[in-house]
Amino acid sequence: MTKTDIEEGTEFFPKFDATGLIAAMAIDAATKEPLMLAYMNEESLRLTLELGEAVYWSRSRQEIWHKGKTSGHIQKVVEIRTDCDQDALIIYVEQIGAGACHTGRGSCFYRNVVGSDGGKLTFNSTDKAFDPEAVYGKH
Amino acid sequence: MTKTDIEEGTEFFPKFDATGLIAAMAIDAATKEPLMLAYMNEESLRLTLELGEAVYWSRSRQEIWHKGKTSGHIQKVVEIRTDCDQDALIIYVEQIGAGACHTGRGSCFYRNVVGSDGGKLTFNSTDKAFDPEAVYGKH
Repeated sequence: MTKTDIEEGTEFFPKFDATGLIAAMAIDAATKEPLMLAYMNEESLRLTLELGEAVYWSRSRQEIWHKGKTSGHIQKVVEIRTDCDQDALIIYVEQIGAGACHTGRGSCFYRNVVGSDGGKLTFNSTDKAFDPEAVYGKH
Repeated sequence: MTKTDIEEGTEFFPKFDATGLIAAMAIDAATKEPLMLAYMNEESLRLTLELGEAVYWSRSRQEIWHKGKTSGHIQKVVEIRTDCDQDALIIYVEQIGAGACHTGRGSCFYRNVVGSDGGKLTFNSTDKAFDPEAVYGKH
């Protein structure tokens, strides 16, 4: 498999990293708003393709993570893209329910890094899309 | 530092992984088109904030990578976002020059994964934004 096969070919050779993962950025297909960045292993990528719903690998829990299975906030896959060296994915999704983030927001990227020393954050959307305790329960 | 500090606070505590890196998705600030996914280490993130231009860590070359220094295709930083657990970044940029990808395209995400078995790719934009050999030279 040559560099040309990978960069210019029409065969999908996802390149998992040393820990068996590939980065996947979920983006709202309708609004183009980035929702979350997570990781997939080979099994979760296969399940994503089979089910047409985003399935990640939870690095914190070390388990397959079918997004929305608990909350109902399923991500229906609209389109999947890969990049030149096939080591990253974009998943354009239809986000079911109020939002992607477990904190109760539509997107996980609700804060901006500000200042040239970058020490501070400001909220770009402080609106709660849903009440996380009502959806996930106290934990 | 508590989970609440990280998720609901206004202090920036970027969480680098075991290899000292954080994922950074560059998105065109004007069109919202995702351009590339790369990684930053602490130094490249600091340089990005200082210069107002995207500086990554090249995993293949194992060196600081000031994007556009060779090609002229600088990425001027418009806005930086981080996510709930502060282990990912979005860099909204003004892409200077013809494109972000070393293959000569505007975006690195020029192919879609197709079919439920996901074995194939189709080009979503086969247009060359620029001639990579003219910009980078033969290598």
